[in-house]
Amino acid sequence: MIKHHAIGIDLGGTNLRVGLVSEGGSIVEKIKVPSLEGIEEPLLHAISEVFTDDVAAIGIGVAGLINRERTAVDVSPNLPSIEGVKIVDEVRSKFGVPVVIENDANVAAVGEKWTGAGRDFKNFVLLTLGTGIGGGVIHDGMLMDVSAELGHMSIIANGVKCSCGNYGCLESYASARAILGYAVTALEHASQSILKELYQGNIYKLTPEDIYKAALEGDNLSRDVLREAGKYLGVGISNCINIFSPEAVILGGGLIGAWNIYIKEAIREASKRTFKKLFDSIQIIPSSLGDNAGIMGAAYLALHSGDE
Amino acid sequence: MIKHHAIGIDLGGTNLRVGLVSEGGSIVEKIKVPSLEGIEEPLLHAISEVFTDDVAAIGIGVAGLINRERTAVDVSPNLPSIEGVKIVDEVRSKFGVPVVIENDANVAAVGEKWTGAGRDFKNFVLLTLGTGIGGGVIHDGMLMDVSAELGHMSIIANGVKCSCGNYGCLESYASARAILGYAVTALEHASQSILKELYQGNIYKLTPEDIYKAALEGDNLSRDVLREAGKYLGVGISNCINIFSPEAVILGGGLIGAWNIYIKEAIREASKRTFKKLFDSIQIIPSSLGDNAGIMGAAYLALHSGDE
Repeated sequence: MIKHHAIGIDLGGTNLRVGLVSEGGSIVEKIKVPSLEGIEEPLLHAISEVFTDDVAAIGIGVAGLINRERTAVDVSPNLPSIEGVKIVDEVRSKFGVPVVIENDANVAAVGEKWTGAGRDFKNFVLLTLGTGIGGGVIHDGMLMDVSAELGHMSIIANGVKCSCGNYGCLESYASARAILGYAVTALEHASQSILKELYQGNIYKLTPEDIYKAALEGDNLSRDVLREAGKYLGVGISNCINIFSPEAVILGGGLIGAWNIYIKEAIREASKRTFKKLFDSIQIIPSSLGDNAGIMGAAYLALHSGDE
Repeated sequence: MIKHHAIGIDLGGTNLRVGLVSEGGSIVEKIKVPSLEGIEEPLLHAISEVFTDDVAAIGIGVAGLINRERTAVDVSPNLPSIEGVKIVDEVRSKFGVPVVIENDANVAAVGEKWTGAGRDFKNFVLLTLGTGIGGGVIHDGMLMDVSAELGHMSIIANGVKCSCGNYGCLESYASARAILGYAVTALEHASQSILKELYQGNIYKLTPEDIYKAALEGDNLSRDVLREAGKYLGVGISNCINIFSPEAVILGGGLIGAWNIYIKEAIREASKRTFKKLFDSIQIIPSSLGDNAGIMGAAYLALHSGDE
């Protein structure tokens, strides 16, 4: 019997997303499990909720470096509890279908290539902008099977230490975590900001959304904070263009909600730095699959895992 | 008649190197034209000196960004006189064989893959360390046809302006030009250094070789200068490993002569920064083709230009 569906799993951050996806590229059913406690238990449970006899394979996208044997995650600065868990073996033995694993941002790039903003490009770089920053590279229409840890590229050689061990990582200067850090530091010294009126003044409860909203309302501190992070994102984007000369840079993750200030500043900064000939022919555009990119890409890799 | 040779040309720096190469990977004849004045004239002349009826095609490796049509060089910060010259058309019309053009560091990577230090690797990054810093990436056994301007990756976001337009480029902190810059600055303020005794004290005549030699003789200023550049090279190498997770980083160019101080410092710095799992499985090794890498790679691309 030929099977026509795959399950795609996105274990990219604190949420677990599991989707049943058709070979035509539609999501048939989707589950989101917020605030994961433990990983194996809720993962196996969520899969069983959408599993059917028509599932050919299961694909898992997960934050971190996948090991060489493609069976588990070696290192995951943002999801340390997954390190070393024999996740592929466990899922395969429980459900009896092939299981593939890949880095979450790589998987999102595959999703965008399959049915998203990357559909019409043969070469693009995807950056996922959230708590951390992930990267995936599509080259010649295919996923480059490399680490693509673009968020852990040092852009300030003598900069702050990152949880990955490196110094001055792009992620430390341009992610949601960085934005919150800039905001807290600025608020500790600032007299005026809309942000001080939120959460009864508890600035540690602020979210990037709060900051973007305040910025749109004209709060100067919030605008400065988003521009600062955007500028560094621009440095990272520029490096990606100078290295990969892609047709497009596709930006995904929660922070693209702050497009008008944060991303626009990034594009402006990148335009000043990048080889002009490369920049002139590039598009910098948002993900079109949003939260579903990971599910879609993981399902695609599962459906095509026997192709090689 | 099936032809068994190609001409490989390396227009990477101030020298022009032209070689007649067999399909088996041997250099039959080689010409080096130092200190180029003009480019087209000496280039066409040098080709005619080694051209035979058995030449199937000609490959040209040249410093800079190749245009999308693969006919000329769009931008070349280190060889501006080549920009816009219709070099492919001119060579093709004069010699009547197919002509291919590619970036010089990309071509050197192909050379190392064909018969050099990269022979046994499917995935490696090549960095050419000279006046500037170039990059080439071999992925899945093949040249990645991207800009790979690894020397123009910003590693100090707010650093010095580079001739490419970017700020804080790796090349500005770790190349031969950077080493000479560090040395001159240090000597202007230093009281003691072997380097002051050379060229009747004209520190602007110093070469990287002088500095390495002095360093080996125990000159502290020279050691510090090489270590400084090596440290930044390590940042660049670390970024390359975190992005490409290669099996090897191969280092070529004149500066690898300073291996024991400059490169060793770079390896030490990279070891501190890179994802441990990636660093543990990597080799950082010198080019084995040296000056011939460009000729070899350009000839290889010429011999295989009809393969696609």
